[in-house]
Amino acid sequence: MDQNDAIALAALTDPALAQRISFIYEIDKLKTELRQSYLVDESRRENSAEHSWHLAMIAMVMAPHAKEPIDFERAIRILLVHDIVEIDAGDVDIYDYEARKAQEAAEIIAADRIFALLPEPEASELRALWDEYEARETPEARFAYSCDRLQPFLLNLAIGGKSWTRRGVKASEVKAINSTMADGLEGVWEIVETLIDQAVVEGTILEN
Amino acid sequence: MDQNDAIALAALTDPALAQRISFIYEIDKLKTELRQSYLVDESRRENSAEHSWHLAMIAMVMAPHAKEPIDFERAIRILLVHDIVEIDAGDVDIYDYEARKAQEAAEIIAADRIFALLPEPEASELRALWDEYEARETPEARFAYSCDRLQPFLLNLAIGGKSWTRRGVKASEVKAINSTMADGLEGVWEIVETLIDQAVVEGTILEN
Repeated sequence: MDQNDAIALAALTDPALAQRISFIYEIDKLKTELRQSYLVDESRRENSAEHSWHLAMIAMVMAPHAKEPIDFERAIRILLVHDIVEIDAGDVDIYDYEARKAQEAAEIIAADRIFALLPEPEASELRALWDEYEARETPEARFAYSCDRLQPFLLNLAIGGKSWTRRGVKASEVKAINSTMADGLEGVWEIVETLIDQAVVEGTILEN
Repeated sequence: MDQNDAIALAALTDPALAQRISFIYEIDKLKTELRQSYLVDESRRENSAEHSWHLAMIAMVMAPHAKEPIDFERAIRILLVHDIVEIDAGDVDIYDYEARKAQEAAEIIAADRIFALLPEPEASELRALWDEYEARETPEARFAYSCDRLQPFLLNLAIGGKSWTRRGVKASEVKAINSTMADGLEGVWEIVETLIDQAVVEGTILEN
């Protein structure tokens, strides 16, 4: 017995359910996609599935800091799906500017494949959430993106900035990438910026 | 620099933000809490953070199978917080009936500590979601619980039932635990029950 038996049996009576089960199995792969961040206890690198959970939780607890009035349900849904394309496209270092350019096309191909595993209307609904995140044109997407900047910053600070120094990332880059946090979160970037400045003094982020 | 610097700096101007940051750091620990389930690729056991993400995704894609009309936002929020108490109380094998009894008290103590890290009203709001899940008295909690039965069943089926046979779990137990799936999901338990029967014939679940 394996996943194909579950999908085949469901398909006999409910083809849409079979598609849902296929998707549930497919996204299990996000648990083995590793990010640049380490866990707070430094035991290992973070994977994109647990990262997505952490972000959804951050959206819940940082709600009072949302810069604009938003639909939090959609923001949470956006965060839950935002990294699913990494199953095919992999995670790209946000400070690797060349790789990020190539990544865009790969992620679109991944989105085309993975969300289409679902029946309609879920396929289009989930794809729309991912497209919304990528476009950053709505308050919900900006809030979600800001949470996605805050979380790795906090994790990396907790381990003494190793993920920055290991990659040779400078303070000016950390600021350029993370200042977008101010687009979706109120009263957070000021503190993050001060922490970056303090980290430079301490040597845990490279000076410009 | 570490997490204490971030919390201390935030506390100077925004004590509630400092509490939120403390909570964000605290729940990172859920990523190292291992469950009985294995990933579909069998590479390792699943942790409770990525499990919570998978469940929130399952709630999204299984929405058309909800047995009662529900507020999906609350169901998703319930699933995001439902395992946070495991940071202190640990994950208990659902088929270890003695351990589960002792677990209840430990989980309440954990909930008292962990959710109280947050400022109000978030502390009470998140605690209420956890209480709602535990009580299973609302359609949202029943749907969430059903998703939480479906996911480990699907994972374990994918690896040939090893997590059942390893623990000596019998088909009658798998049915007793998982038939509650029918309380929150429509048209799913029938298929799961047939899969259990097929697994008995195949020998991947022990007969009664």
